[in-house]
Amino acid sequence: MSLPKQRITLITLGVADLDRSRAFYDSLGWSPAEAVEGMVCYQMHGQALMLFGRAALAEDQARAGTELGTGAVTLCQNFQDRNGVDAAFAEALAAGATALKSPEAVFWGGYSGYYADPDGHVWELAHNPFWPLSEDGSLTLPEAT
Amino acid sequence: MSLPKQRITLITLGVADLDRSRAFYDSLGWSPAEAVEGMVCYQMHGQALMLFGRAALAEDQARAGTELGTGAVTLCQNFQDRNGVDAAFAEALAAGATALKSPEAVFWGGYSGYYADPDGHVWELAHNPFWPLSEDGSLTLPEAT
Repeated sequence: MSLPKQRITLITLGVADLDRSRAFYDSLGWSPAEAVEGMVCYQMHGQALMLFGRAALAEDQARAGTELGTGAVTLCQNFQDRNGVDAAFAEALAAGATALKSPEAVFWGGYSGYYADPDGHVWELAHNPFWPLSEDGSLTLPEAT
Repeated sequence: MSLPKQRITLITLGVADLDRSRAFYDSLGWSPAEAVEGMVCYQMHGQALMLFGRAALAEDQARAGTELGTGAVTLCQNFQDRNGVDAAFAEALAAGATALKSPEAVFWGGYSGYYADPDGHVWELAHNPFWPLSEDGSLTLPEAT
């Protein structure tokens, strides 16, 4: 299947204190689909919002120790396989993106790369074998186990 | 109708040079649903991505002249009316959000307020009379005229 180009399947907010952030979104009436050590994930319409430690996010972006700036919000497109990630990453570089981290296997069992758009807005391209995509390229988080 | 809490209907990227940014997303194969003076808007799954001048975005957030940092990406929830915006804004402040701009009528014909979450991530709450919401609270951009 061919995924639509214009989509964001995951938005990650880099946060200083995960407990504090989770309490804030709890207070707003949000309820996590998944909350494990270091990560809280909410289902939205065909996409997910994730709270993730800011230092860990910087490390994930291969920018450990930096403040991240606008990259503290990361927009992610998920793909069905590693080839999809590689192809989209190459396309982004050809379009003038700045590579932050070339796609590689990552600790959580997936495959992920990062690039910055002309303003430093950070996009992640990822394959997550635990997150199957819908036919229309949208994301519904699996039931928590 | 009651809208789901967990949704983002619009993501705005503050950009330094709108033409440069549009060319970049064009190169990635994105096609705007709308492009007018100072704003380019793309349809995604039930939500929109907008490119908007960073200085104008700072002004819209009542933070003119600042660098914005993480707020250069703004996450927006749209509502059906002004009351929906006011109620959600009050709820956010009660949850500990920092008010950036109380909801008010804005130049584009809508009604909008901004708050920051504990890490400074910026949320906009807005009513846009030109953007009707679906029953499920998702957003499909109107046909360009």
